[in-house]
Amino acid sequence: MKSANYYFLVFTLFLFNSGFSQNKISEEPNNKPNIIIIFADDLGYGDLSCYGHPTIMTPNLDRMATEGQKWTNFYVAASVCTPSRAGLMTGRYPIRSGMCSDKSRVLFPNSTGGLPTNEITIAEQMKKAGYVTAAVGKWHLGYQKEYLPASHGFDSYFGIPYSNDMDRANAEGVSHKEIFWNADIKYFNVPLIKNETEIERPANQNTLTKRYNDAAVNFIKKNQKKPFFLYLAHNLPHVPLFASKEFLGKSKRGLYGDVLMEIDDGVGKILKTLKETGLDKNTLVVFTSDNGPWLVYNDHGGSAGLLKDGKGTSWEGGMRVPGIFRMPGKIKPGTVTEIGSTLDLFTTVSKMANIDLPQDRITDGIDLSSILYGTGNDGRENLIYYRGQKIYAARKGAYKLHFITQTAYVKDTKKTFHKKPLLFNLETDPEERFNIAIENPEKVKEIEKMVDEHKSGVKPVKDQLAERIN
Amino acid sequence: MKSANYYFLVFTLFLFNSGFSQNKISEEPNNKPNIIIIFADDLGYGDLSCYGHPTIMTPNLDRMATEGQKWTNFYVAASVCTPSRAGLMTGRYPIRSGMCSDKSRVLFPNSTGGLPTNEITIAEQMKKAGYVTAAVGKWHLGYQKEYLPASHGFDSYFGIPYSNDMDRANAEGVSHKEIFWNADIKYFNVPLIKNETEIERPANQNTLTKRYNDAAVNFIKKNQKKPFFLYLAHNLPHVPLFASKEFLGKSKRGLYGDVLMEIDDGVGKILKTLKETGLDKNTLVVFTSDNGPWLVYNDHGGSAGLLKDGKGTSWEGGMRVPGIFRMPGKIKPGTVTEIGSTLDLFTTVSKMANIDLPQDRITDGIDLSSILYGTGNDGRENLIYYRGQKIYAARKGAYKLHFITQTAYVKDTKKTFHKKPLLFNLETDPEERFNIAIENPEKVKEIEKMVDEHKSGVKPVKDQLAERIN
Repeated sequence: MKSANYYFLVFTLFLFNSGFSQNKISEEPNNKPNIIIIFADDLGYGDLSCYGHPTIMTPNLDRMATEGQKWTNFYVAASVCTPSRAGLMTGRYPIRSGMCSDKSRVLFPNSTGGLPTNEITIAEQMKKAGYVTAAVGKWHLGYQKEYLPASHGFDSYFGIPYSNDMDRANAEGVSHKEIFWNADIKYFNVPLIKNETEIERPANQNTLTKRYNDAAVNFIKKNQKKPFFLYLAHNLPHVPLFASKEFLGKSKRGLYGDVLMEIDDGVGKILKTLKETGLDKNTLVVFTSDNGPWLVYNDHGGSAGLLKDGKGTSWEGGMRVPGIFRMPGKIKPGTVTEIGSTLDLFTTVSKMANIDLPQDRITDGIDLSSILYGTGNDGRENLIYYRGQKIYAARKGAYKLHFITQTAYVKDTKKTFHKKPLLFNLETDPEERFNIAIENPEKVKEIEKMVDEHKSGVKPVKDQLAERIN
Repeated sequence: MKSANYYFLVFTLFLFNSGFSQNKISEEPNNKPNIIIIFADDLGYGDLSCYGHPTIMTPNLDRMATEGQKWTNFYVAASVCTPSRAGLMTGRYPIRSGMCSDKSRVLFPNSTGGLPTNEITIAEQMKKAGYVTAAVGKWHLGYQKEYLPASHGFDSYFGIPYSNDMDRANAEGVSHKEIFWNADIKYFNVPLIKNETEIERPANQNTLTKRYNDAAVNFIKKNQKKPFFLYLAHNLPHVPLFASKEFLGKSKRGLYGDVLMEIDDGVGKILKTLKETGLDKNTLVVFTSDNGPWLVYNDHGGSAGLLKDGKGTSWEGGMRVPGIFRMPGKIKPGTVTEIGSTLDLFTTVSKMANIDLPQDRITDGIDLSSILYGTGNDGRENLIYYRGQKIYAARKGAYKLHFITQTAYVKDTKKTFHKKPLLFNLETDPEERFNIAIENPEKVKEIEKMVDEHKSGVKPVKDQLAERIN
């Protein structure tokens, strides 16, 4: 007969080996998965190697796409910074929060508005579920104290409050090209903020990406015993471009490629940290961008790949971005052609953390988890393409209808109002080359009806972007 | 003491388990690897999922790219069928064999010329090394008996001798759109040839891809004990498009996507057969295309992704194509940004099979094996972009110089001669957007000199494409 000690030892070894230790329990995906959203700035649909770029090398993002899901119809809520970010944060079209405007496309350092505190953010949802929350990187949802991340559900914040090209300094009489092409931090007086305090001004932009990546890794290590939500919003590859010495000159794609290599390197470090801390299988990592490439900056801007036009427009190149989702063992690897949006992140991660959606307001998100888990395809059917407060286009299934178009290849181009809206089939014609409105009048009507229904649900609110201090 | 029988058994088991059986010996890569070249027709740089297409699903090619190398600067010798294929077959710019012309861009059913029999083909090289050789699919290097694959080193042939849209029938008074959009085999009187005999006319194009894939699989199974060379040249996705019932309506990208799914399915079947026959690790599989997408056929044509323009042009979209190389355990997986060309296949596989290159003529290929094996990067430095017999552009390293440009978006556009050639950096500006000739006069001169040197080595030969029987 074996002794009790023997059985104890066997049982202990069983527990140890089968993963019933405390560390391992957190690997069960249903037990409040950690959430990391990595958000690039002005990175285009065609800018990653796994989305077809010939000279930008992004091995870590490529691996993330192979191990997880690569979405090829993933959208943002607006084709410029501020409203796009408001959409991600609230899961609502920015028209509902007043975070888009026909008077100013984004917030500026002297803007008085910001994301209203009565909006419920994705971070606040996560806090309800007991998550530790952190924002690292660019905010751009209000520079006044009441609008900073601390007022919107983030336990901590480290980053710059608006775009890295705002707040010029020493730029009088200097050519636009000099300021942007030979980017020197001396031209930009952007503050770096820790929680609610300015800690560096001008921010040393040469090392920002590195510091953001380090902050992300440290946050994960520090909070490995708790569920956490990390919003890592790089302020690059928005111009002006900067990279650490380690990456300068390393890419065939020039400085733009160097910048992406450093962002990709951060992704690699984050994935490595998740592996080392045993959190790999219980952490959803999402990578996406706030809008398409800024095409007026020559090779300091990115590429929308096969998609038309770029940042600022309602063509696909402005609104469709890379969307990569990874959670090994939980997310079914593959390429996904269903429609998704950054608007859906609010809803999807709320569901993952078992938190109810707000019932006192309209949210515009869809729970994408059936697609992520490979159990269904209850994706998004509709999408509204806003520019400012106007609806420029709308998508329903494969079809997209343009009411107004305006290019971004040249600055300040005029908009074209289409009395007969343009219709494209984005599945067979993702490049938006062949207007098929005449052959499909019922599709035109169907989308027009959908847009009318959407409009009727939008209530006027204060325009947060209109006011600026002179 | 063990008996001798015992030791015999042990030794036999050792041989069996350690892979020293005859089947396994052939898995040693240096022992004359089998070669399979899969060649698509008019498939663009952006048409595969792994090259960024949002709605065309090519899981087998994607896997091949992940397990092997995905080349992002891989070119063809010309931007239309006949000269491109002549380049691949001979490893020489088609100007050297008379297989390009300013009078006719390709061979037609009533052309009298073809690839001269004194040219040495890649198949003839393989035969010298003792390989069994087969051509399956579209030939397009001469319809007369003396020009067919049997005269050029192929032990067997099964396919159509020219493009699938040639030889119209029942087409009088029928609109061009009807003929191509609702593709019906009744409009095309293309012959199907087995070795040198017409076996079906009109070829049932609905089932051709399936029959090609089956022929490829059967060839591999039949020749698994010998070294073999298989040239599988699909005649699709060249218009008119056809797919088997199994694939019709299966792709979100419409008929074009269905066609690619069937080609991709064939790739999967070939890779599966290699695995089952134990030849996986000793077979180089190459996938590429003969030129860029044919843009005048709306959504029946493909996409060059981020690259400019398409088939027929010397813009990148006409000449740069997907290039995927796979030989597990031998080819180092990854994305390759070095320059390669279908011209290099002749040289590369000759070296792999230990066969000397022809010494009595100029060949234009580079041995790419150091890049494939990950032992170096002795890739191609230069590239000449011919259209007919004229040099339209040339690339040296990152830089490409255009002497003449001509778009293909609209039929019969006029060419533009550039007194001041246009210079692009294809690494930082793969979309050919920013002419940097003025800032880089030394680069312009360097490329002009390279072109002059190339020209001085080209001797006039008979134009094989000029003559046609009326």
